Amino acid sequence: MTDTSTNMRTKLPITCFILEIILIILFGTLVQYDYETDARAWHNKTHFDFENDFYYRYPSFQDVHVMIFIGFGFLMTFLQRYGFSSVGFNFLIAAFSLQWATLMQGFFHGMHGGKIHVGVESMINADFCTGSVLISFGAVLGKTSPIQLLVMAMFEVTLFAINEFILLSLLGARDAGGSMTIHTFGAYFGLMVTRILYRPNLDKSKHRNCSVYHSDLFAMIGTLYLWMFWPSFNSAITAHGDDQHRTALNTYYSLAACTMSTYAMSALTAHDGKLDMVHIQNAALAGGVAAGTAGEMMLTPYGSMIVGFLAGIISVLGFKYLTPFLEEKLKIQDTCGIHNLHGMPGVLGAIVGAVTASLATVEVYGGGLRDVFPDVASNKIDASYQGSMQAVSLAVTLGVALLGGLIVGLILKLPVFGTPPDAACFEDSVYWEVPGEDLNHDGQLTVVRIDETEKLNSPMAQ
Amino acid sequence: MTDTSTNMRTKLPITCFILEIILIILFGTLVQYDYETDARAWHNKTHFDFENDFYYRYPSFQDVHVMIFIGFGFLMTFLQRYGFSSVGFNFLIAAFSLQWATLMQGFFHGMHGGKIHVGVESMINADFCTGSVLISFGAVLGKTSPIQLLVMAMFEVTLFAINEFILLSLLGARDAGGSMTIHTFGAYFGLMVTRILYRPNLDKSKHRNCSVYHSDLFAMIGTLYLWMFWPSFNSAITAHGDDQHRTALNTYYSLAACTMSTYAMSALTAHDGKLDMVHIQNAALAGGVAAGTAGEMMLTPYGSMIVGFLAGIISVLGFKYLTPFLEEKLKIQDTCGIHNLHGMPGVLGAIVGAVTASLATVEVYGGGLRDVFPDVASNKIDASYQGSMQAVSLAVTLGVALLGGLIVGLILKLPVFGTPPDAACFEDSVYWEVPGEDLNHDGQLTVVRIDETEKLNSPMAQ
Amino acid sequence: MTDTSTNMRTKLPITCFILEIILIILFGTLVQYDYETDARAWHNKTHFDFENDFYYRYPSFQDVHVMIFIGFGFLMTFLQRYGFSSVGFNFLIAAFSLQWATLMQGFFHGMHGGKIHVGVESMINADFCTGSVLISFGAVLGKTSPIQLLVMAMFEVTLFAINEFILLSLLGARDAGGSMTIHTFGAYFGLMVTRILYRPNLDKSKHRNCSVYHSDLFAMIGTLYLWMFWPSFNSAITAHGDDQHRTALNTYYSLAACTMSTYAMSALTAHDGKLDMVHIQNAALAGGVAAGTAGEMMLTPYGSMIVGFLAGIISVLGFKYLTPFLEEKLKIQDTCGIHNLHGMPGVLGAIVGAVTASLATVEVYGGGLRDVFPDVASNKIDASYQGSMQAVSLAVTLGVALLGGLIVGLILKLPVFGTPPDAACFEDSVYWEVPGEDLNHDGQLTVVRIDETEKLNSPMAQ
Repeated sequence: MTDTSTNMRTKLPITCFILEIILIILFGTLVQYDYETDARAWHNKTHFDFENDFYYRYPSFQDVHVMIFIGFGFLMTFLQRYGFSSVGFNFLIAAFSLQWATLMQGFFHGMHGGKIHVGVESMINADFCTGSVLISFGAVLGKTSPIQLLVMAMFEVTLFAINEFILLSLLGARDAGGSMTIHTFGAYFGLMVTRILYRPNLDKSKHRNCSVYHSDLFAMIGTLYLWMFWPSFNSAITAHGDDQHRTALNTYYSLAACTMSTYAMSALTAHDGKLDMVHIQNAALAGGVAAGTAGEMMLTPYGSMIVGFLAGIISVLGFKYLTPFLEEKLKIQDTCGIHNLHGMPGVLGAIVGAVTASLATVEVYGGGLRDVFPDVASNKIDASYQGSMQAVSLAVTLGVALLGGLIVGLILKLPVFGTPPDAACFEDSVYWEVPGEDLNHDGQLTVVRIDETEKLNSPMAQ
Repeated sequence: MTDTSTNMRTKLPITCFILEIILIILFGTLVQYDYETDARAWHNKTHFDFENDFYYRYPSFQDVHVMIFIGFGFLMTFLQRYGFSSVGFNFLIAAFSLQWATLMQGFFHGMHGGKIHVGVESMINADFCTGSVLISFGAVLGKTSPIQLLVMAMFEVTLFAINEFILLSLLGARDAGGSMTIHTFGAYFGLMVTRILYRPNLDKSKHRNCSVYHSDLFAMIGTLYLWMFWPSFNSAITAHGDDQHRTALNTYYSLAACTMSTYAMSALTAHDGKLDMVHIQNAALAGGVAAGTAGEMMLTPYGSMIVGFLAGIISVLGFKYLTPFLEEKLKIQDTCGIHNLHGMPGVLGAIVGAVTASLATVEVYGGGLRDVFPDVASNKIDASYQGSMQAVSLAVTLGVALLGGLIVGLILKLPVFGTPPDAACFEDSVYWEVPGEDLNHDGQLTVVRIDETEKLNSPMAQ
Repeated sequence: MTDTSTNMRTKLPITCFILEIILIILFGTLVQYDYETDARAWHNKTHFDFENDFYYRYPSFQDVHVMIFIGFGFLMTFLQRYGFSSVGFNFLIAAFSLQWATLMQGFFHGMHGGKIHVGVESMINADFCTGSVLISFGAVLGKTSPIQLLVMAMFEVTLFAINEFILLSLLGARDAGGSMTIHTFGAYFGLMVTRILYRPNLDKSKHRNCSVYHSDLFAMIGTLYLWMFWPSFNSAITAHGDDQHRTALNTYYSLAACTMSTYAMSALTAHDGKLDMVHIQNAALAGGVAAGTAGEMMLTPYGSMIVGFLAGIISVLGFKYLTPFLEEKLKIQDTCGIHNLHGMPGVLGAIVGAVTASLATVEVYGGGLRDVFPDVASNKIDASYQGSMQAVSLAVTLGVALLGGLIVGLILKLPVFGTPPDAACFEDSVYWEVPGEDLNHDGQLTVVRIDETEKLNSPMAQ
């Protein structure tokens, strides 16, 4: 019956109920089935069944969905005592964010006669926006309460939708796989939030901020699902036909090359010539991030491989040299190393996208130029202008992310949100009923209740 | 060389061989490729390749398949010493059930000139029927032998097919995602079976009827796959086009809202304001169950969210208050709490379906009314009659499930099936070769053989 | 700062960098987008978007992709101290192999005007070839360095492409699911390699060559993904329409029947009438292997079930009686028992394919004969000749695999590749930074660093 600030008995139910009721009211007021999900609208016209966008995009949507819930969720289970929170809070904030994102993205770029239309494309976009929130979650993992995370998600989704609107609608940028809108935005937003939430005494929980043997295997489940389905992620909302096909192919090669350079760099930089699971779990994915913008373009297979190859190298070097520097000098405590997986590879992807866009020609794209660069195809702008807008988009994204992260970080410092004390970070038992494991003398597993939470909470609760 | 009733050396091989040989003979006599899988038939007509139903339904089938084998299998691995049996018996009875279901469902509503036609739709339907058996398995988990489970599956599949025939063919009910046919049926059938198999001395195994840290993470794999792919489950056999699309969308929103209310209720009701993994693993899925009947209808996104929201609340309350009551007062030992995940949300889904059906109008559905309510569209019946038939279907399902469970439970009490003694419930080593885990002084893992089975079996075997 | 041959600090980076740079150069010179991924080419003609092969094959590709990275990767995590290497080396050699396979397969049967064309079909074929390498990896699991594996992959992919060219292009054999090209080839190649790498003193590591409780559950993740997605594997590159549909259906039934006979045989042969996880994890998959060649043919559902049923029996018997014999008498140390899962069932599948092909008639296949047996349909050959060519193909495959394995095995014996000493086999810490697990007296998990590698490496390094 402890009554500390981390007790969620009243706070979490109130937060969840209020948020969900607001969501339901707004959905009731604003959201409608789109043309392809509405029984009346769809049957009003004649067409083949397979023209329904469902058949073009639903398999990709499901792959993205797996990346969001299993991929991100299990990737973060590497912490020895934070598996419940990693996968559980990931689940909670994703379930909230996808609903809120439907509204925010609809509001900024999906209104039709005062109504937000929903279908498989809005589902994919909502999952994408959710991905951005989960990236930021990686930076603050282990140091935040579920309420802080929900509040962060609420603001971040809103800012995501604004930034996405500026990039795609105002600047006319292309970013199908979200190197900028998802990865760069999520990473720098999260890094700024964790900077504001800096904990000088986090070393009190240091012994828990690492993995154990089985937790690293759970994390590999997350890694592999992200890796395997990244081609679906980058191609999920590109144009039908060659575009989806080509994007998946480019991403596939980028990831394969990235894996090779990741293993090479890991052995080169890690202790004693051995491979480091942290690198494998994270850096091998950088090739997907870096192919996020240019993946739909005529990047060529070997171009994709070069991008992935570089992304892997940058990412491992970041884990080895930059993360300790950021922590010690800049006071940025980045639990999952999102700067290495999403930050730098996202910026790389944005640059590759800008360069590739500026080189686009009718000779190479033919009639497909309309799909990839509609403004260039219609002669509204030329390719080099498209490239410049891509570069401007990167700058805008960094600005919105950092400024947004600053403000949201300050909001999250309000004590009412129930942040864990320094000594109880990276510890599930603050927020979860946790069974323990014990091997008694008979070699038979029995359960012990870990009652250390009292210990952890009472003396150190601010 | 113990020779107790739980020894499977001869019983299991005989059972499996006889069942499979019967299956092969019946398949050889009765089963044919359908029009879309038969080389001659398909090539006899001209059509586009993509008109083959394979392309409409196979991705959904695979998602359903993952739910059946990974979803159900791993959801039940939460027990600390029953992981092999959870995922292994799940595997066995699912592999049997999907074959037997093909025959039973074909017999009751898929005969064409004396032959059962098979293709992707029959595969989905067989997996659905299997899901129902696995729900019942959740109630008796840890307390039954594999032979009992196979016998239960044989009868339950048969009764499932009969009930499904009554509902869909005789009463004209709609139940694409199976709130009634799958969830309500599987739950109440399983609850009655476990009631009949009541063990007054089950507390002898109480120390094993709980989770350990890693087993809860394995269970979350099951939970998340069920959650992510439930939109595919509910939409797998709805009509092509807007129907599949809309059903997936409705289920997606229902689940998201359900997750929010589950977390809220878990913190509200669990010990000390902490979240309880049992709720997260199970109640967050109730939104999928509750959208099983109305998911294909014009439920609207916010309507789906309300349904999911309520389902989550009911389900957590069930775990907190109803499950202990059922166990103590009604002698229903429901290992996985299927009443909370499938029973009550299934009934809720049936009611929502009946109400939504009775409100259907041509104004809302347009030409799509033909897909969702063909009898209403053809003016054979009106919407309120359709709604009544939905309600009658729920009653029929409850009746068939409870009566069927009673009879099958009595059959399963026959001692020949090798049920485990009370003190050896929730224990893998009764039926499996189990390696142990030990950490010796060097911090190196070594293997110890757990030889407690002798202990467990010899003195208590009836 | 040990400087033994197993130190990967310089060797692995050099190997990976050189291989990847060669790949990039060759891709830059030789590889082009195919018609369906190239923006200009695709838009040069008019067609429906859904005619793009992406929509026919990408969902199957993703299923195959999951089998390669999660399926094979986790299937091999059953070893108690080799989980990082199982899933991590699987990841590395798969990422390399799929790039190399694209070149080799393109070179032998995909050149168009001096260029290799890539798209979803080449992606699937590359994953298939990778699967063959991973099968061989199973035989040498725990006894090889990552560099040995990369070298093996390089040669094996090349030989695979040659053998595939002989079978499919020269002999006109049909083998859509690769009973011969993938499974038989990978198995006998791997068995010969492990024969050449025979270690007489491997019992020094015997205590690590087994599973622990949780590692068996991780392995079941691999098993189930392989099992569930095998219908996609076998149907991934069959012809559009009824062929893909029928192949998936046949494989589904074959696997279900195989699971039944596996459980039966496991209980019959294992210690004390209990089930053995090794059988369940492996033999239950033999039905997919055995349906690899005949799956696309008019094998009939019950024919598929008979094939799966036999495959399960053979496979369990192999684990029980043949594997110990191979190890003791023939000095073939087959860590995963690939002979039982891929070798014998692959040969069975080849024979079933030959028989089924020789029985093909226009009466049964109708116009579909063109898809399955184009040479028979065009009267170039008759069905019995097709059957003979299938049988010849099996013999060729065995020859190429065994001879290739012999040569590659000898190459792998070069000491420069950094093979682990006998006492350090099946041990992650040779190549990985490994955290340990310890339960201290408070029931709280803490981390211990396992520094046994020095111990392992220094005295025994050759």
